[in-house]
Amino acid sequence: MATDHPIIKSLNDIDFYKHTMCQVALHRGYTDVPVEYRFLNRTKKIALPEYFTEDRLRSELDAIRKLRFTKSEITFLRGQNRNVKRMFQEDYLDFLGGVQLPEYQLSTQGDHFDLRFPGPWGQAIFWETIALSIVTELFGQAQLSRLTSFEQEVQYAQAKVRLLEKIKKIRKYPRIFITDFGTRRRFSRKWQKFVDRVLATELGKQFLGTSNTLNAMLLSLLPMGTSAHEMYMIYSAIFRQSDHQLRESHNRVLQDWWDEYGWDLSVALPDTYGSDFFFRDFLREQAVAWKGLRHDSGDPFEFAEKTIAFYEGLGIDPRTKMIVFSDGLEVDTIIELFLRFGDRILVSFGWGTTLTNDLGFTTLSLVIKAAMANHLGTVKLSDNLAKAMGSEEDIARFKNVFGYKEATYTECMV
Amino acid sequence: MATDHPIIKSLNDIDFYKHTMCQVALHRGYTDVPVEYRFLNRTKKIALPEYFTEDRLRSELDAIRKLRFTKSEITFLRGQNRNVKRMFQEDYLDFLGGVQLPEYQLSTQGDHFDLRFPGPWGQAIFWETIALSIVTELFGQAQLSRLTSFEQEVQYAQAKVRLLEKIKKIRKYPRIFITDFGTRRRFSRKWQKFVDRVLATELGKQFLGTSNTLNAMLLSLLPMGTSAHEMYMIYSAIFRQSDHQLRESHNRVLQDWWDEYGWDLSVALPDTYGSDFFFRDFLREQAVAWKGLRHDSGDPFEFAEKTIAFYEGLGIDPRTKMIVFSDGLEVDTIIELFLRFGDRILVSFGWGTTLTNDLGFTTLSLVIKAAMANHLGTVKLSDNLAKAMGSEEDIARFKNVFGYKEATYTECMV
Repeated sequence: MATDHPIIKSLNDIDFYKHTMCQVALHRGYTDVPVEYRFLNRTKKIALPEYFTEDRLRSELDAIRKLRFTKSEITFLRGQNRNVKRMFQEDYLDFLGGVQLPEYQLSTQGDHFDLRFPGPWGQAIFWETIALSIVTELFGQAQLSRLTSFEQEVQYAQAKVRLLEKIKKIRKYPRIFITDFGTRRRFSRKWQKFVDRVLATELGKQFLGTSNTLNAMLLSLLPMGTSAHEMYMIYSAIFRQSDHQLRESHNRVLQDWWDEYGWDLSVALPDTYGSDFFFRDFLREQAVAWKGLRHDSGDPFEFAEKTIAFYEGLGIDPRTKMIVFSDGLEVDTIIELFLRFGDRILVSFGWGTTLTNDLGFTTLSLVIKAAMANHLGTVKLSDNLAKAMGSEEDIARFKNVFGYKEATYTECMV
Repeated sequence: MATDHPIIKSLNDIDFYKHTMCQVALHRGYTDVPVEYRFLNRTKKIALPEYFTEDRLRSELDAIRKLRFTKSEITFLRGQNRNVKRMFQEDYLDFLGGVQLPEYQLSTQGDHFDLRFPGPWGQAIFWETIALSIVTELFGQAQLSRLTSFEQEVQYAQAKVRLLEKIKKIRKYPRIFITDFGTRRRFSRKWQKFVDRVLATELGKQFLGTSNTLNAMLLSLLPMGTSAHEMYMIYSAIFRQSDHQLRESHNRVLQDWWDEYGWDLSVALPDTYGSDFFFRDFLREQAVAWKGLRHDSGDPFEFAEKTIAFYEGLGIDPRTKMIVFSDGLEVDTIIELFLRFGDRILVSFGWGTTLTNDLGFTTLSLVIKAAMANHLGTVKLSDNLAKAMGSEEDIARFKNVFGYKEATYTECMV
């Protein structure tokens, strides 16, 4: 399972939601909005430059800029549909043909890498999971390389043992359905592909698919994903002429999303400015229409209770709605959530780090976020203050506009 | 790691001692002595016909009869030496060129296979480890095949984890030296080869070599081994005209062995008729000359104490002599024996089942012994009555002739 260079060999080796979001940006005319994504290592105790060199990182990132979406990758996307309707229109597929990832900015600042991806939204958008996958794999390989050849083999062997333990636990509950959300956190490209192949054969219908577009193609799986915080964050920079417009920008994302994909991809991400705001702002007709919500920060049990109460308060049967849990899941948490909520609301699980990076090494909490858009700083508040971002001044304004009350702070482990 | 057919592809896929013994038989003119080896499953609770069919076993055994020693295998043997002197003479290598394994007799009797290998000693001798390897691998594959594909992979993964744990324990004591004695007990041909390759890279000089002649050739290792009980048992049938001659037959083996190989292979197997007899019978000049003894039954700690006392009683410094422990070793027993005796006598470890068949499945205690020779029944008494064999009448006579006192009975696990 040794890593070869370059780590990433296909522009489709990304999370599927990059495509679904980029098409919305294209159809709304936002692909040229200037944005800047920034890399952040939330795991402060790990100084990445001690594990691999800036040059090595550059060589991997440079390799990406030579890649283009290939004809077969575009063909695969053309074939994607949900309930008969095609998912991607020809103008988007044409647009993809012209995508080249923009230049990155990389320097070493003391014990960390300063890594930024400025560029037009419709191009820079594709850096996120690619760069995270690269950094994570370089870090993993650095740890692996300290072992002898057989010790390395055993490290993988132990990971297989743990993977089977998880599979056996999941199999015990045939109504638990999981999705691989682990592209960005994966130990390596090869390992994620291995895990996806194993889950497909060992879990059958309990494995819904993978967020990794390339693996979906190569392994005949369903590519999975909806949208990310960047939608709300970038919209907030496009629509910030007034507090009112800023406040409206959140629901504008939801409306544009519905217009593009309708029911099929109608899973909302409610925590950009805190889920309390979301529940106040989400209209009854939206709650009726949309499939459900994705949980990505804060206590998942509290969130589920709040969600169920929200639907019940609107006279909507929660058992017709879904929560996709996707925040640092462990197998035992998955089972606990299923047992607690499985009969009260539809549940599904987007599983990341502990699925695709359970190699027995230290793992990192890395993110790449759209920190600037339309020449303005962006803001994320989240249901966990450890995940908040933005300038102090902007955060104060956003808290005010979105009526944000203090949330708890929980260190991000993954 | 799937098993392909045939399991055994080379006549040299045998324990090395088959060659060293066969050459003695050739040089003493005993290769035509009629013998009959018999298969015995000491693990009564396992009914082998429930795991694989007689036909499948036949197809594997039939494949062996088509094999011949190849030129490169004979060349490998020609190159073997110890301290300058060549180990195998040209007449033996010529003899090998004509070896074809004789017909076997196989039937299913109730819940067990009755499997016999009659033939001239110099031909039938090669069946022993081959047939044991085949039966063990068929049994292992039957257990493996009950698992899903990934579960099978994880079974190997867990075995790798355990192998590394053993290696790490052994590495802590750089003066522990081990040899792979696991051909007959190996989970599969491929797995033993894998284990040998791993030990060679991970243990360095602490891994002395392997009893498997083919693996030694393929992996550039030292082929290891001396002699087995069959030497004493067959000699006892050639020399049985009187009780005196029978009694002398035991030491005759040792004398012939010394004449053939001198000091280089002078590790005696003392327990055929109980080690008490051996210690009474082994002459002081032999004790001075021979390297040491191999322990193969009874309590190893008691045996080592007895051996040390034996040498000390003769005024021989035990620290110049060696015990090769080879009876159902576990890694912790190896370490315990080393700690207890490592400074008092040279120790070395011939490791079998728990080295090459630690796959997490049930293992068997199988043997193939020369039950008949020269038209007479043979006898083995051993230091563990669970390993004794022979007709009641013969056993009574042998106990009397060799002055055998009752030993303990300990069920054979491996």
